[in-house]
Amino acid sequence: MSEKSRSDKKGFKRRDFLKIAGIAGVAAAGTGVILPREKIFASSKRGKKGHLSNEVKPGELDDYYGFWSGGHSGEIRIVGLPSMRTLKRIPVFNMDVASGWGITNESRKLLRGKYTGDTHHVHGSYKNGTYDGRYLFVNDKLNNRVARIRLDYMEVDAIVDIPNVQGAHGLFPQRYPKTEWVVQNSEFQIPVPNDQTNAAAFDRPKQYYGLHTIIDAERMSIVCQIMVDENMDLAATDYKGKYSMTTSYNTEKGVTISEMLASDYDYMLIFHWGRIREALRKGKYKWISGVKVIDGRKGHSDIVLRIPVPKNPHGVNISPDGKYAICSGKVSPTCTVVDLDLVDRAFEGKIKPEDCIVAQPEIGLGPLHTTFDGRGNAYTSVFIDSTNVKWNIQKAIEAEKKGPEEKKKKEYIIDVLDIHYQVGHIMASMAETKEADGKWLVSLNKFSKDRFLNTGPLKPDNDQLVDISGEKLRLVHDGPQYLEPHDCIIVRRDIVEPRVKDRYEMFEHPLAVVKSGVERKGRNVTIRMTSNAPVYGLQEARVKKGDRVTLIVTNHDEISDLSHGVAISNYNINFVIAPFQTKSVTFTADKPGVFWVYCTNFCHALHLEMRMRIIVEP
Amino acid sequence: MSEKSRSDKKGFKRRDFLKIAGIAGVAAAGTGVILPREKIFASSKRGKKGHLSNEVKPGELDDYYGFWSGGHSGEIRIVGLPSMRTLKRIPVFNMDVASGWGITNESRKLLRGKYTGDTHHVHGSYKNGTYDGRYLFVNDKLNNRVARIRLDYMEVDAIVDIPNVQGAHGLFPQRYPKTEWVVQNSEFQIPVPNDQTNAAAFDRPKQYYGLHTIIDAERMSIVCQIMVDENMDLAATDYKGKYSMTTSYNTEKGVTISEMLASDYDYMLIFHWGRIREALRKGKYKWISGVKVIDGRKGHSDIVLRIPVPKNPHGVNISPDGKYAICSGKVSPTCTVVDLDLVDRAFEGKIKPEDCIVAQPEIGLGPLHTTFDGRGNAYTSVFIDSTNVKWNIQKAIEAEKKGPEEKKKKEYIIDVLDIHYQVGHIMASMAETKEADGKWLVSLNKFSKDRFLNTGPLKPDNDQLVDISGEKLRLVHDGPQYLEPHDCIIVRRDIVEPRVKDRYEMFEHPLAVVKSGVERKGRNVTIRMTSNAPVYGLQEARVKKGDRVTLIVTNHDEISDLSHGVAISNYNINFVIAPFQTKSVTFTADKPGVFWVYCTNFCHALHLEMRMRIIVEP
Repeated sequence: MSEKSRSDKKGFKRRDFLKIAGIAGVAAAGTGVILPREKIFASSKRGKKGHLSNEVKPGELDDYYGFWSGGHSGEIRIVGLPSMRTLKRIPVFNMDVASGWGITNESRKLLRGKYTGDTHHVHGSYKNGTYDGRYLFVNDKLNNRVARIRLDYMEVDAIVDIPNVQGAHGLFPQRYPKTEWVVQNSEFQIPVPNDQTNAAAFDRPKQYYGLHTIIDAERMSIVCQIMVDENMDLAATDYKGKYSMTTSYNTEKGVTISEMLASDYDYMLIFHWGRIREALRKGKYKWISGVKVIDGRKGHSDIVLRIPVPKNPHGVNISPDGKYAICSGKVSPTCTVVDLDLVDRAFEGKIKPEDCIVAQPEIGLGPLHTTFDGRGNAYTSVFIDSTNVKWNIQKAIEAEKKGPEEKKKKEYIIDVLDIHYQVGHIMASMAETKEADGKWLVSLNKFSKDRFLNTGPLKPDNDQLVDISGEKLRLVHDGPQYLEPHDCIIVRRDIVEPRVKDRYEMFEHPLAVVKSGVERKGRNVTIRMTSNAPVYGLQEARVKKGDRVTLIVTNHDEISDLSHGVAISNYNINFVIAPFQTKSVTFTADKPGVFWVYCTNFCHALHLEMRMRIIVEP
Repeated sequence: MSEKSRSDKKGFKRRDFLKIAGIAGVAAAGTGVILPREKIFASSKRGKKGHLSNEVKPGELDDYYGFWSGGHSGEIRIVGLPSMRTLKRIPVFNMDVASGWGITNESRKLLRGKYTGDTHHVHGSYKNGTYDGRYLFVNDKLNNRVARIRLDYMEVDAIVDIPNVQGAHGLFPQRYPKTEWVVQNSEFQIPVPNDQTNAAAFDRPKQYYGLHTIIDAERMSIVCQIMVDENMDLAATDYKGKYSMTTSYNTEKGVTISEMLASDYDYMLIFHWGRIREALRKGKYKWISGVKVIDGRKGHSDIVLRIPVPKNPHGVNISPDGKYAICSGKVSPTCTVVDLDLVDRAFEGKIKPEDCIVAQPEIGLGPLHTTFDGRGNAYTSVFIDSTNVKWNIQKAIEAEKKGPEEKKKKEYIIDVLDIHYQVGHIMASMAETKEADGKWLVSLNKFSKDRFLNTGPLKPDNDQLVDISGEKLRLVHDGPQYLEPHDCIIVRRDIVEPRVKDRYEMFEHPLAVVKSGVERKGRNVTIRMTSNAPVYGLQEARVKKGDRVTLIVTNHDEISDLSHGVAISNYNINFVIAPFQTKSVTFTADKPGVFWVYCTNFCHALHLEMRMRIIVEP
């Protein structure tokens, strides 16, 4: 937000104030002590000893928007950095009473009866290798969907179902020249299709497959799927718009844990986008469950490059200079560094896939994910050791060249930070863009144990904030998170804030109410209602028992932050409408009686008096 | 928690670590830098200038458990103080995918199809005027219920429906000698009963009533209801076990906002518990909707004392010394101080109800709620002014005695803090007990506006933390909260922590699984499964399309914090099981295919490999 618009908002405060005082009939004369003049500029200031400070005092704003995938909570969270305060929840694949997500007609249309989800990876839309601030994309591993979030309203506007897959895991948007495609991996191999027409495959795991799905980012529809024998978990795209890549830990096609661990080597897979486009052009695909499926199996096409990596690998991340893909060993203590400039030659058959590997440094026990500071260093999360390891990519490559004796010295390792503990994903500020700035790193730790007051058998996870601006990693904050902070991105404030809106475009919703009233058509009754603090546009509506009632409400308060709630007593309905927003809900009036509809979102000194009656006649 | 048990837990860490490394077949050799020795003692230490510091560094613990009612999110939140970090969500009247609340059979039995709620007031169970750390109680204003939370497991164990009411608002437990009763008010007057048998009353608001409900705290059943003409919102109980009290803002029986504002005076109502018990003994009640309803209307019984107070009053709070009930004017700028020692005489008819009032100080525009520091001072939230006002109770009483000229000087007002802004409830540490300690105050502000990074039209609320240990109020922290931080209590750590458990009593659940297996009875199939990181007790279960399947899972990992998830791909099911916990879910296997069941709660280096198949045969 510009200084100008912020200053307008401050000017707004007194007007809001008067408006809110409004009907109470009392003058809004301020009393009391005035706060020190607010500081509205960025924090992340240098403190003592040149360290970054994470303190964000009252009146100060955070420097970064953190977008957290909430794991099996099914939601996204917005976390301010460096304060680590959770600023908002965005319901995605879950039901959220507060906002009415999963309750209103608008949200039910998107969710289609599925109120559970498991959001693993959230990423932003890109232009020229950095975030453009338009969208977030996030997967649902549980019900196999991908959702898109508009960043102007900070809410979901589209959800696409992914057929033919289970364990819809890694997701990554195209980074260059802009996000036209989003890729999405299936972690669990299954029969394709997975229905009665293919029952013979149910007991033949060798006939189970994984799919790399390509989604059209604007249309939120499926472009195609590439079928392979392997399973795939994490995903990445390069900085040239040529490849997407993933790791597979179950090249064995095992269905038990021991079978999945049988091989010492699995694969990093690279998908050739030029060849995918060619296959689509030439019609080299089958239609399965309504989508185009291209055969990417070994020996069936030249679309997929398979680079052998040890063992049950996990994360794959691209360095901000676009040069390297780094893949973590998980059950191997190593990271594998792939030089992306060599991948074309491997695709052309001029070198072997494994010749793309330029280093395989030993990092620690259980390496999972790697992030970057834009200064040539990588930071890898190490699950079993419970550490974040800082290492230098060029030094690792040089050590590899010099041979085993040099590697043993591990001079590429710069620092190791114990975390508390059992880390999953880690992410540095802007690290998944060419603008990685090397200030903050968040370590998403899966156990908090005695790090917080005991909250019973089910405890929070622990997001730790690490200052990476210096040579050493410096732990500065423990941030408890409700289950489960799976992954995150950390986006500079100036990219997002100018796009964020304070109110809706009222007529974007086709049912926006400008005149309150009740309309009956047979047993269908439509109640249209405006809301202006502290009154709804109707004081009363009458329906008959058994009527199918649709309630549509538009918030006519334009004042930033002045939202209303709409709850129907004993009818199990609540939703919130932000300034100029419209929402609707349809229900059967199955209980006769007087039912108060009331405002649930504190809006005014007379908020409690903001209510109306629906009278359901017997 | 004692130092001893904490130290045991630290010792436990290495064992957990090895266990987690377990099946990966790698030795858990720690590497890297060791964190500074953890400080496990309380914070709230004095900083520069003698102020309290709210910084809680990595490794330190908070001093207080804050229990926040989450408004129309339907949940309770645990917030650590003074750090203001949200430590946990406790789903109550909502659906929560992460834990499986509203999804498992156990939780569905408690929720009975109602997945929305509006938690306004959370209070703890008492013994001798202070918290005993056993339970929390919380209301649902939307679907008119009261839930109880066990503090050992920090989860809901009982929910009771309140018949004959709407707008189930204020709630307060008995404070002395211990919590046997919990009182609960209905804010919206309705016909009683509110069904087809009483349809004639639907259009006669003068035949609408409010009910003061008394709940048995142990049985979570309804003792009785006292019916009055008035509506009632906030609730309190005294420190002697004699009275409960409430405010009414709609003594007019209005159904529109202007009707509700018609009178300049409304009431504070006091309920005489001895006389309620007598009425129950003597059978002076009617059965309505299955509960005993006592007539408390003016002229119909002597159970209720009505003290006139100006105007549309709101909060009623009792000073920690038990002497005064303080009631806020909302549309009047005053607080009304009632001397509880005079109430008996008023009930006996020796003085008039209004003679119980010993002061009516002017506080500010829109006073809502009052809290206390245990040093004779009151702190009142003032909505329209957007302030917290500190005032001295004795000085206000003395000024009242001395007359209008003395009152005008307002010398009872000690300090006024601007908040940011539009405050609702406020609460000081331990303030609703005789052990009020006057350290911290939380101001639950209903708008955050430009206090945080812009998160779209729907913004967070703003909990501000105020140091009240000195003469002046000192704002130290902005804490964003998702909709809606309605009210809270702030409880000393030593009261709660010793009662909190790290694992469940396994056989408290009658279906706890000790042996995995599949059992069929006709079309009903029961899948019983243990879980031990990183494997479930079954690798496969076979059912037929159309079977009614019950999945029961017990977590056999005893290690503190080692929870597992259980998600069924494409079957819209997820839940989490903490150490030694059992949960179950019943569903129809309506889709043939191979369906992977996987662990959603990161548990082990091989967490991803923790899965099994349910094969649904066509």
